[in-house]
Amino acid sequence: MFDPGMPPNEKTVSRLSEFGLIERLVSVFDRNFRPEGEPLDGLALVLGNGDDAAAWEGPAGATVFTCDAMVDGSHFDLSYSTPADVGWRSMVSCQSDIAAMGFHPTYSTVSLGLTGTESPDLLDDLYTGMAQACSRFGGRVVGGDVVRSGTMFISVAMVGAASHGVGETAARPMTRSGAKPGDVIALTGPLGGSAGGLKLLMSGPVPGGPSGQGATLVQAHRRPEPAVTTGVWLAANGVACASDISDGLTADLGRVCRASGAAAVIRLAEVPVEPALRAVFPNDWVDLALGGGEGYQLLFTASAEVVEAARAAYPAITPIGKVVAGEPQVTVLDENDEQVKPGITGFEHFST
Amino acid sequence: MFDPGMPPNEKTVSRLSEFGLIERLVSVFDRNFRPEGEPLDGLALVLGNGDDAAAWEGPAGATVFTCDAMVDGSHFDLSYSTPADVGWRSMVSCQSDIAAMGFHPTYSTVSLGLTGTESPDLLDDLYTGMAQACSRFGGRVVGGDVVRSGTMFISVAMVGAASHGVGETAARPMTRSGAKPGDVIALTGPLGGSAGGLKLLMSGPVPGGPSGQGATLVQAHRRPEPAVTTGVWLAANGVACASDISDGLTADLGRVCRASGAAAVIRLAEVPVEPALRAVFPNDWVDLALGGGEGYQLLFTASAEVVEAARAAYPAITPIGKVVAGEPQVTVLDENDEQVKPGITGFEHFST
Repeated sequence: MFDPGMPPNEKTVSRLSEFGLIERLVSVFDRNFRPEGEPLDGLALVLGNGDDAAAWEGPAGATVFTCDAMVDGSHFDLSYSTPADVGWRSMVSCQSDIAAMGFHPTYSTVSLGLTGTESPDLLDDLYTGMAQACSRFGGRVVGGDVVRSGTMFISVAMVGAASHGVGETAARPMTRSGAKPGDVIALTGPLGGSAGGLKLLMSGPVPGGPSGQGATLVQAHRRPEPAVTTGVWLAANGVACASDISDGLTADLGRVCRASGAAAVIRLAEVPVEPALRAVFPNDWVDLALGGGEGYQLLFTASAEVVEAARAAYPAITPIGKVVAGEPQVTVLDENDEQVKPGITGFEHFST
Repeated sequence: MFDPGMPPNEKTVSRLSEFGLIERLVSVFDRNFRPEGEPLDGLALVLGNGDDAAAWEGPAGATVFTCDAMVDGSHFDLSYSTPADVGWRSMVSCQSDIAAMGFHPTYSTVSLGLTGTESPDLLDDLYTGMAQACSRFGGRVVGGDVVRSGTMFISVAMVGAASHGVGETAARPMTRSGAKPGDVIALTGPLGGSAGGLKLLMSGPVPGGPSGQGATLVQAHRRPEPAVTTGVWLAANGVACASDISDGLTADLGRVCRASGAAAVIRLAEVPVEPALRAVFPNDWVDLALGGGEGYQLLFTASAEVVEAARAAYPAITPIGKVVAGEPQVTVLDENDEQVKPGITGFEHFST
């Protein structure tokens, strides 16, 4: 319910109590939460927001747990994303981590840092976007914390379950360390859409307005889609190694190589690229596809037979190379078997 | 392990990669983690930090989930708390939420917002303090995220389990809504130490130096102790209603009244107060004891018989009043049965 103490002409959140604000926001979430997938029948929520902690009852099995924070000016910019887009992306970044384990997103908490100048409408839109992402890809916001901060931030923590809890076999989580020489490396879909969209947004008004190929890229940035269904299928069908692509293909595949003690050789010509990206950025598309993050496709490695079976179930799955024995590194070959050196090698927040 | 790419004379974290930094910090945690209580044998960690998410295997039963964020300048101040104190308090605030449910803290993720000017030593100390609190009161940091932010923040999310997973009966979580007219209201220990310590620290050098009654209060602020053991005992022995005192007795008891649809009458003379508080603040001790937060005692309500049994097990437990029928409100009576109106009514971050 809305905080009854809030005056109707409230312009900023600074006069709301912390408890009133959380109650309001979780209620906005609940009103906009219309789950499309299977319900979490085996993980019944006992207590939602409003107590010291949320609580649920669940079956035995594996649980996964991740967190991701987004900071105003660094991970989002309200001058070219709507608050609902930011809310959507804050959930997707954790849903994608859980998809990369092959699990179902279940419950989330949100710590929100506010300067106090935000309007209640902005925050309602933020939580509406969160509810849209959870309705579509699973999970639910069950608690939170609001604090005053000089910089606005959104910190999401999310728990995931191996199954919905009713009659499914619990899968083992897929890890970054499971790649073996001889494995095929594959992607769940095309790269570069989100990075291209961000580049367009940062450079000013989008050419072609709300339609056209620029708009396709912008939409990929504003509303990325985590590969939850595909990830769950992969884990259930014997894939042991996966990672999401949150920091760029070369960066995330490099981490898989280091964790697995193996090398990767991929062929640029095989890497699926968002078609609009080549059209809009004829000179930069290679860097954007190999180095761009936040598209949230998964990369995984498995035997050729398992990759073929996965591809039969999810036709967007595309093999791009092989795991080979050797020092951990990623080699990208062009059509002449020569090494490509992309200018962007993945986003690392604390690099120089 | 330490990030091999870090130069030995590194003065700030800004040249570390995000992955190198998280790896370093979780390794600092692990080196300083020496669990004192029962191990979480039934909740075996399958994957710690370093993958898309952490993972563990657990038995069927209830899970609780909470989060709390602390922001530099608002929730902590490194000019009068050490980084290890701040790390300790960041864990305790979640451990206390889980204690208030009657559960055991199990696993945590930490989202860290850094300006980039922090020294690696400061961050090592922060995670050492986290490890000390987890060693003492349970739980473990299993993942995290580091982002750049104009304001430093620490956002902790924590999961708790009803039992250690081996041969214990899973308790039902205690809630704020379980208070019934006729229940006795009790506290797990004395109030006001942390608030008194903070007031001393904010007013300059602590009188009496590192010893004496001022030092007792300062220690209570820097190293508060969550009532985990007591909380677990209460839930296992039939207490249905509890809350931690994170925002002050009157504020947190007020929430219990609203959630339960009942009123509370407490007697000031019965409220246990940290002895050093009365000595150091002869004029302000009532406001500090009733309104001061972050002391992390629990308040709970139960039948007189259950409270007596609890008191036999934990002698610091003290009855302070009764739940009565009526509109939700907290009445504090003095020795003449007259109403006390404390100046401080609890900390609400977004109030005017």
